Amino acid sequence: MDPLFHPRSVAVVGVSASTDNLGKNIVKNLLNFGYEGKIYPVGPRPDRVEGLPIFPSVRELPETPDVAVILTPARFVPDIVSQCGERGIRWAVIQTGGFRESGPDGMALERLLLEAAARYGLRFVGPNCLGVMDTSTGFSVPFITLPSTYRKGAVAVMAQSGGMGLSLVERLSSSGVGFGKFVSLGNKLDLDEVDYLSYLMKDPQTEIISFYLEDFKRGREFFQLAAQSSKPIILHKSNTSPISRTIAQSHTAALAADDRLVDHLARACGVVRVRSVSQAVQAAKAFSMPRLRGSHLAVLSRSGGHAVVAADTCGEFGFRFPALCREVLEEIRRHARAGVIRPGNPLDLGDIYDLNVYFGIAEKVLKQPDIDGVVHVHVSHMPVEKDATRNLLTRLERLAGEYRKPVSVVLEVPFEDRVAVEKEASYPFFLDVREAVEALAMHRKFPSRPGGERGAGEKEGALPTWYDAAAAWVQAQSALGRRPMVHECLELLRILDIPTAPWALARSVDEARDAAVSLGYPVVLKAVGESLVHKSDLGGVAVGIPDADALDEAWRRLGSLSDDVEGILVQKMVKGVRELMVGAYRDPVFGAVVLVGQGGILVEVLQDVNLRLAPVDDALAADMIRELRCSPVLGRYRGLQAADTASAAEALAKVSLLIHHFPLIREVDINPIVLGDHGEQGLAVDARVVLETPNHEDPLL
Amino acid sequence: MDPLFHPRSVAVVGVSASTDNLGKNIVKNLLNFGYEGKIYPVGPRPDRVEGLPIFPSVRELPETPDVAVILTPARFVPDIVSQCGERGIRWAVIQTGGFRESGPDGMALERLLLEAAARYGLRFVGPNCLGVMDTSTGFSVPFITLPSTYRKGAVAVMAQSGGMGLSLVERLSSSGVGFGKFVSLGNKLDLDEVDYLSYLMKDPQTEIISFYLEDFKRGREFFQLAAQSSKPIILHKSNTSPISRTIAQSHTAALAADDRLVDHLARACGVVRVRSVSQAVQAAKAFSMPRLRGSHLAVLSRSGGHAVVAADTCGEFGFRFPALCREVLEEIRRHARAGVIRPGNPLDLGDIYDLNVYFGIAEKVLKQPDIDGVVHVHVSHMPVEKDATRNLLTRLERLAGEYRKPVSVVLEVPFEDRVAVEKEASYPFFLDVREAVEALAMHRKFPSRPGGERGAGEKEGALPTWYDAAAAWVQAQSALGRRPMVHECLELLRILDIPTAPWALARSVDEARDAAVSLGYPVVLKAVGESLVHKSDLGGVAVGIPDADALDEAWRRLGSLSDDVEGILVQKMVKGVRELMVGAYRDPVFGAVVLVGQGGILVEVLQDVNLRLAPVDDALAADMIRELRCSPVLGRYRGLQAADTASAAEALAKVSLLIHHFPLIREVDINPIVLGDHGEQGLAVDARVVLETPNHEDPLL
Repeated sequence: MDPLFHPRSVAVVGVSASTDNLGKNIVKNLLNFGYEGKIYPVGPRPDRVEGLPIFPSVRELPETPDVAVILTPARFVPDIVSQCGERGIRWAVIQTGGFRESGPDGMALERLLLEAAARYGLRFVGPNCLGVMDTSTGFSVPFITLPSTYRKGAVAVMAQSGGMGLSLVERLSSSGVGFGKFVSLGNKLDLDEVDYLSYLMKDPQTEIISFYLEDFKRGREFFQLAAQSSKPIILHKSNTSPISRTIAQSHTAALAADDRLVDHLARACGVVRVRSVSQAVQAAKAFSMPRLRGSHLAVLSRSGGHAVVAADTCGEFGFRFPALCREVLEEIRRHARAGVIRPGNPLDLGDIYDLNVYFGIAEKVLKQPDIDGVVHVHVSHMPVEKDATRNLLTRLERLAGEYRKPVSVVLEVPFEDRVAVEKEASYPFFLDVREAVEALAMHRKFPSRPGGERGAGEKEGALPTWYDAAAAWVQAQSALGRRPMVHECLELLRILDIPTAPWALARSVDEARDAAVSLGYPVVLKAVGESLVHKSDLGGVAVGIPDADALDEAWRRLGSLSDDVEGILVQKMVKGVRELMVGAYRDPVFGAVVLVGQGGILVEVLQDVNLRLAPVDDALAADMIRELRCSPVLGRYRGLQAADTASAAEALAKVSLLIHHFPLIREVDINPIVLGDHGEQGLAVDARVVLETPNHEDPLL
Repeated sequence: MDPLFHPRSVAVVGVSASTDNLGKNIVKNLLNFGYEGKIYPVGPRPDRVEGLPIFPSVRELPETPDVAVILTPARFVPDIVSQCGERGIRWAVIQTGGFRESGPDGMALERLLLEAAARYGLRFVGPNCLGVMDTSTGFSVPFITLPSTYRKGAVAVMAQSGGMGLSLVERLSSSGVGFGKFVSLGNKLDLDEVDYLSYLMKDPQTEIISFYLEDFKRGREFFQLAAQSSKPIILHKSNTSPISRTIAQSHTAALAADDRLVDHLARACGVVRVRSVSQAVQAAKAFSMPRLRGSHLAVLSRSGGHAVVAADTCGEFGFRFPALCREVLEEIRRHARAGVIRPGNPLDLGDIYDLNVYFGIAEKVLKQPDIDGVVHVHVSHMPVEKDATRNLLTRLERLAGEYRKPVSVVLEVPFEDRVAVEKEASYPFFLDVREAVEALAMHRKFPSRPGGERGAGEKEGALPTWYDAAAAWVQAQSALGRRPMVHECLELLRILDIPTAPWALARSVDEARDAAVSLGYPVVLKAVGESLVHKSDLGGVAVGIPDADALDEAWRRLGSLSDDVEGILVQKMVKGVRELMVGAYRDPVFGAVVLVGQGGILVEVLQDVNLRLAPVDDALAADMIRELRCSPVLGRYRGLQAADTASAAEALAKVSLLIHHFPLIREVDINPIVLGDHGEQGLAVDARVVLETPNHEDPLL
């Protein structure tokens, strides 16, 4: 994809000399940004723009450009792409709008466009986008003229909305961070989020990858790839509410994925999810500093109040403050008025007025081996310190680089000084103590990775031993053309060897009594019948049946529920105050997904669930359970023994393999798995399976 | 307190002509900020500063100034205050440090200072502070020279740390908000947070009150007063972690209150708690707009992406989007290119380039009666629109004022344009869509108030009917000099008429058997003995005893737990999956406090509690329960009947009156109150009371 960012030559198709021609702006930007390659304006009317001749078509160009930027009415685009292909052009940026976002005709045009491009192996950005920028080469082709003062940097900004992308590069430019590559993704008809991610993960000029997405075209692959990245990935996925979706459809025709799932996948794959431009800037600032390798900080502040707030925030995020070593303390004593500064950490240096002393102290602190990073609060309201403030960042940047430790700088300075720094800085800074500490906390939350993390729907190994039996079950059930009934679902658990509360299906009250005796009272009765599959919550269950009399009564009640009661399931009643639920489903965007959650009465209030791409192995399944908020309760807790979470983890892994291997299964739900109070084996109590058959009326979720 | 902010004349004590004299800076600030009153520098060496003569003492001044600003070595301060008092000065700003924050000698000096001031009825700010500023009068007396370009505004900034205060006024000045009064509170030896709050609530120049506090001197009164305020109060209470406290002690010798309690009291009293300067600025911006009166918004955006993000965020905060009326739609049609803009709400106006059209649309939208506020996203990256951007804010401010509806403005503009706006704006703006929406959400979270809210430890009415009996119980227990035992605590519940699971105290196994029969099996046994008071969790309880045999066995086990088992409490076992806990304690800063929380196994994981100043009445107690996160579970839920929360609320109110009326009670804990699954009366199962006696070894909490 290199030619898209540093082409030796570019054709700009759709240029004319008329006042409101937008193509002209593209040429202007290229010149203003200092692009050094050849620029070939192309347009039907011969003229000159910005001193350059307009060529009638790409055919007439003196050479084959590396890239064509296309901004003509939509109906011409497929033909122009064909011409580009014929001319040997392999990359295009198609800015023209009026495709899928404007209805069925646009959809048809998109098909023609794709065909034309495929014929020549031409790959393209867009359509319906603002284009590409690269601050290192000056290749900048948006169709609105932009300030050429953007700061160069190592952040790549990939934005499905050009406007959102520009907001981010603007903010990054005045944050000491800057950016390198910018792509407005548009309709992602050809190149999509996975293509860009894959390229940027290897691009030597990119250190931080930032995405603004309104939908996923290949969501599953995106997260699987992201999990392999050694570079931080910042994701602003918008379009999360029904109303956003209506606008997004008129905007880039986005299909929204389940938003909670995106949260879970981001967390699992180490992707930093943000919800605003400001948060994206904050994350980019955080990762622009050297990596924090531990949790031990020093806070240097010129104001006691700021030191207090820094300590508050550090405490909140679990940072520690090692004592400062002798060398540092001596340095302080040399410069401070006797007795006024208490040499602790956080260090309130309010009494030292010479800023040079601060650097000396900062350097000695960075040298200290048990200190992993520094929060440096620079408070200066006195106009005389203007220059010192400007130099401060450069000096601290050098120190941070030298000692390979982050120095998170807070500037509490007058407006004019702040503006000067915003204009010039090449190292991130913060205007707020809390944000400076949060940036370091982000390093801990997203530790640097060698790449190749697990956790994103790994490839399976050998087929599970239960594969054939499960396949037979799926086939048989699918042939029935109705939703599997309770006993059939429990039968599937038996095939998977998932421990289940003992049960038997009784066709008569005598059979039920016998079953209850052999299982042992108390028991639970569940009515089984086709019409009851959807109604299991509505009276089809009788719990806590202590004896034969109660059983008789329950039998009568359940048996009269509907005409098609085929039998009654008798199940040993199992007890335990702790429950888990395990499930899997097929998401239209992300494919097979597995879920574990806290069961029991508070489940809906707590929303304590964890999701991952399926399949997961036992170890990852165990991690998923450990990450639940209720996890502390699952250990030894308030007189309860540690719960048997291992069998729940195994069940989770098996269910994840089941949905992975059998495309006919749409949804599996084991709820609850009861975890005994005394560490007994966890037992599944109920299960539901929904199959993919066209006749099913069940909603997907 | 008016003279502190607009005195007709001021003495600055501690001025000399020497280079490093800080008093001189005070005089400079007064002149630079355009203070028009008389300035009298005072210092031992006769000279002139800034053209003004230095007087040898306040005695020699030609008139009695309204205020004295004092910045001399600490040991001279009490005497100088006496001189001021003799001269008839009634207000002082004491900036000198070296009082309690520097140890016992400083404490002694503080006592002398207080005595001197009291003798003459002189009130003072500080000591150990940066002073006072008032942008409306130019009365500005910090001892460091400050930029005189601060923006005037209606926010009062009260900061216990001068540095934190300056950071906030600096940020407010470039946010279109500005500030009016500034006080660096220092050691709060005389004037404290309650004095300032009380003054500012009545001050006609102040519309928003912002506090930065590291401790509370009168925490209870602060929140009781805040609950009465019709003006928004923003509170940044820092000093929340043990480490912050060490610094704070060297800083302003702060005593920290329980931080979670501060959160609860802030919420209960309508105080906006923030945790950083940025958050304080955000809150001040929010309340600088006209008040949002409903939840119906219109979003106008020039970028589709920003409209999507605005819709996301609005959805997240529960805002609705009414359809735009015919007038608006016509206005759009008049200006938009045919068919490109879909006239919905949120409205993506990307196709309209003339900014004047935007104002027309904004005005028509604001006129629409069912729209309560507007989010206006101004995206402009083109240098040609610089002036339009500058005018935008002024025009939208006028519209917002005219229609008395908030217009939350997002500026997505190039750096230079942003800086120009920051310099000039007199109406708040946001650099991020999310922050603009969050500002409106803050209006909903903290609705405007007429003043006089309840919720903050209201005055009690008549004595409760159980007062005498409870007094007798407290007196008797207190005389025993040990912690009340289980049956004694349950006896107190009986006095308060709080429904309790039936119980009896048995002195022999026969008595226990009789009690169990009369209460009905299953029962719970609890060993009663002085040494067991602290050990009730450690085996002193046997639950779920189904019959006499099990009772015999439990009796033997419990009876042998210690030598001092006096008897065994037999209690009817009550069941219900839903439990609450109710308690009260006396906080060293905030006094009597009452607490309700979710009981049961997840209580420690959920931390689902609610706290208020005691006493509370039944209605407020019911509110406290309704505000718990587990509240949905307490209604009809998953086959359970609505729980009897009314009796829990009554218990809560009674416990709050108990701790309010009886200073000898330090802590009360009723845990759990079991709420039956079928709506049965909620029953207290266990209670603990800790009394205030010097011999108690219990930790406070």
